[in-house]
Amino acid sequence: MRKVYEYPKSRAAFERACKIIPSGIYGHQGPAEGCYVPVEAFPLYSSKAQGSYLWDLDGNKFIDYMCAYGPNVLGYNDPDVDEAAAKQRRISDCTTLPNPVMIDFADLLVETVACADWAFFAKNGNDVTTCAVMTARAYTHRKKIVFFKGYYHGISPWTQKIDYAGVLEEDVANNIYVTWNDFDELQEAFEQNKGEIAAVIAQPYMHGNFADNELPKEGFWKKVRKLCDDTGTVLIIDDVRAGFRLDMAGSDHYFGFKADLICFCKALANGYNVSALCGRDFLKSSVSSLSYTGSYWMSAVPFAAGIACINKMKKLGCPKLLIEKGTKLKNGLVTTALKYGYDLHVSGVPSLFYLRIADDPTLMLHQEWIAECVKRGVFFTNHHNHFINASLSDKDIAETLEVADEAFKVVRERHS
Amino acid sequence: MRKVYEYPKSRAAFERACKIIPSGIYGHQGPAEGCYVPVEAFPLYSSKAQGSYLWDLDGNKFIDYMCAYGPNVLGYNDPDVDEAAAKQRRISDCTTLPNPVMIDFADLLVETVACADWAFFAKNGNDVTTCAVMTARAYTHRKKIVFFKGYYHGISPWTQKIDYAGVLEEDVANNIYVTWNDFDELQEAFEQNKGEIAAVIAQPYMHGNFADNELPKEGFWKKVRKLCDDTGTVLIIDDVRAGFRLDMAGSDHYFGFKADLICFCKALANGYNVSALCGRDFLKSSVSSLSYTGSYWMSAVPFAAGIACINKMKKLGCPKLLIEKGTKLKNGLVTTALKYGYDLHVSGVPSLFYLRIADDPTLMLHQEWIAECVKRGVFFTNHHNHFINASLSDKDIAETLEVADEAFKVVRERHS
Repeated sequence: MRKVYEYPKSRAAFERACKIIPSGIYGHQGPAEGCYVPVEAFPLYSSKAQGSYLWDLDGNKFIDYMCAYGPNVLGYNDPDVDEAAAKQRRISDCTTLPNPVMIDFADLLVETVACADWAFFAKNGNDVTTCAVMTARAYTHRKKIVFFKGYYHGISPWTQKIDYAGVLEEDVANNIYVTWNDFDELQEAFEQNKGEIAAVIAQPYMHGNFADNELPKEGFWKKVRKLCDDTGTVLIIDDVRAGFRLDMAGSDHYFGFKADLICFCKALANGYNVSALCGRDFLKSSVSSLSYTGSYWMSAVPFAAGIACINKMKKLGCPKLLIEKGTKLKNGLVTTALKYGYDLHVSGVPSLFYLRIADDPTLMLHQEWIAECVKRGVFFTNHHNHFINASLSDKDIAETLEVADEAFKVVRERHS
Repeated sequence: MRKVYEYPKSRAAFERACKIIPSGIYGHQGPAEGCYVPVEAFPLYSSKAQGSYLWDLDGNKFIDYMCAYGPNVLGYNDPDVDEAAAKQRRISDCTTLPNPVMIDFADLLVETVACADWAFFAKNGNDVTTCAVMTARAYTHRKKIVFFKGYYHGISPWTQKIDYAGVLEEDVANNIYVTWNDFDELQEAFEQNKGEIAAVIAQPYMHGNFADNELPKEGFWKKVRKLCDDTGTVLIIDDVRAGFRLDMAGSDHYFGFKADLICFCKALANGYNVSALCGRDFLKSSVSSLSYTGSYWMSAVPFAAGIACINKMKKLGCPKLLIEKGTKLKNGLVTTALKYGYDLHVSGVPSLFYLRIADDPTLMLHQEWIAECVKRGVFFTNHHNHFINASLSDKDIAETLEVADEAFKVVRERHS
């Protein structure tokens, strides 16, 4: 049996943090959001990271399947990306005038992403989803935006829920919410809001939290694309989370359609801080018409990192490679679960798989199993999809399956 | 006479950029926004940067008084900040769990900034101004926000103007605009919106574009502070632009009052991508109540850079040092202008001085003079404040005055 981890140093650091940082750690990287349940099973701070691995403050080593919630696509501290970034840093980073590496990065995205005639850069996924919505409103002179229930498009007030703290009814007054994969309902929403819908914004498939991830139904995207075309509505794909883990040409391309605007962030530069909005020619002057910029949006180092990251993903054969690794892991996990009589549901594309033990609708059993994995060095989480990175080895997958096996065994014995 | 710069390579790069980036270069770093007038006088791309200097693609060297619009506070590529950042990068940057350097940075800000009982980190100034406004609304359960005309608080829809592209009336429905330095008008706005005002948001003094910058009138801030206290209104200081160039303890401290929330970005980490919201204890749990995070917000490298930047600013005696350098430059410029019979107005705090030749209300003369300075290697701009960095030397200031002299001479001869 493996050593079961404990986290006294992480706990001490968290206590210290809580005094001077709201929530100690905020967002889904912290314990408040409910991905780390039971919280005692999880380390809260890392001391270092390399490739697929993360070490916590107590010296415990983890195979990390959260990948910084996406940015780690090649492996932490990838030498090629880091070298390109360091080289650019010696020249310049955040200066009064942009470095032409910005144009090179735009060039590469236009060459890589199927729907991209141009690229616009910012810092957060939220910056580019907001830019996309404003662009659609500027272009159509309409107000309303259609969302699919279960969506996440960032943290600006317009994309939050009315019952969330600090959000006003005015912020979300022009939002229309429809059921994912229900084309009839979408069509009805268009009927009821004729000539008023500026955009449909959607993730390429429903990879929300606290629910099995749902791929698009056969023909769904084709019908949505046609409806948008017929009504002059802008189709925005939020590829912040899934981008480059389904298809280098964009997740719209993976599902056989063409977005008007597509939003990238996470996997774009292996963790260097940059996001991008790409889109079709007819919307370019609408983007230009916006008043939209930021202090660090033309920093050169993340552009150099992004170029190195995209080129290396291509060279390695990502995202096919990531999907293969994820499929191997998924199959192994399902088989291991069955060995102990558990029905493990794995949903979503395997490069960003979502896990749920289906035997217990309260999810308590699932949480117990996840906890036993984490405490033995496999960093899964409960109610969020996971991420595969290119440095994950067959040995890592084999070790993960050993840990999963031991964790299932512990849970089965506890409940027998 | 000095060589007059030309920019063929910058122009070629811009042409290339225009094909694949909306506006070629967007925001105030690009020619579309009107700071670079006449645009022919300005280079548009940089090839490298070091200390106070920027080189363009054509090999022309500039003393750069825009400092990346603020982030360059110690000098480009500051060795101490870069070393601290590189050291952290070898350990980890953007990972699943934060590195405790995040807590160290929060600690340092709480120790440094007078009104800070806690710190919250993000990527853009806009992230933290938005967080501040949402926090005020969550805390007060009120909707309205008071702005001072001439403000800039970022690019989220709530802080834009109703006639800007992509902005809806709903976005700005709860905004109240009053005249800077007019306490009676502010008081009247409070009377007319009794019990409805969540926050007053303001820069520490009016450092808007296209107008002389205006310091607060004697007693103004004290009265505003009292009005907020009496009405339970949150007082937000947007110190994104001025932060650490007036006072290490915050620009509210410089003007003798205490903000409830204060927003930092630009000078926080010498160009490494990080922003911070700091504030008083009574608002900490309201920040925690928000759903507010981002992919890169816990990246460790910018935190390490921020710690090194703040410690070095303190060691060098910033911002006193920056104000002294700015004062020396300002006095020299005014004297040089007088020599040619021009009345150069220099407004704002000298560490972020604003220039205007007052002899011509159309500002054409001013633009001509700025153009002649830029073409001789002094990077000023027309309708935006400038920034002093700590690496600016006496020799740089002397050379700036020589260029300014020659530029005044050229303009005077042209108009005589």
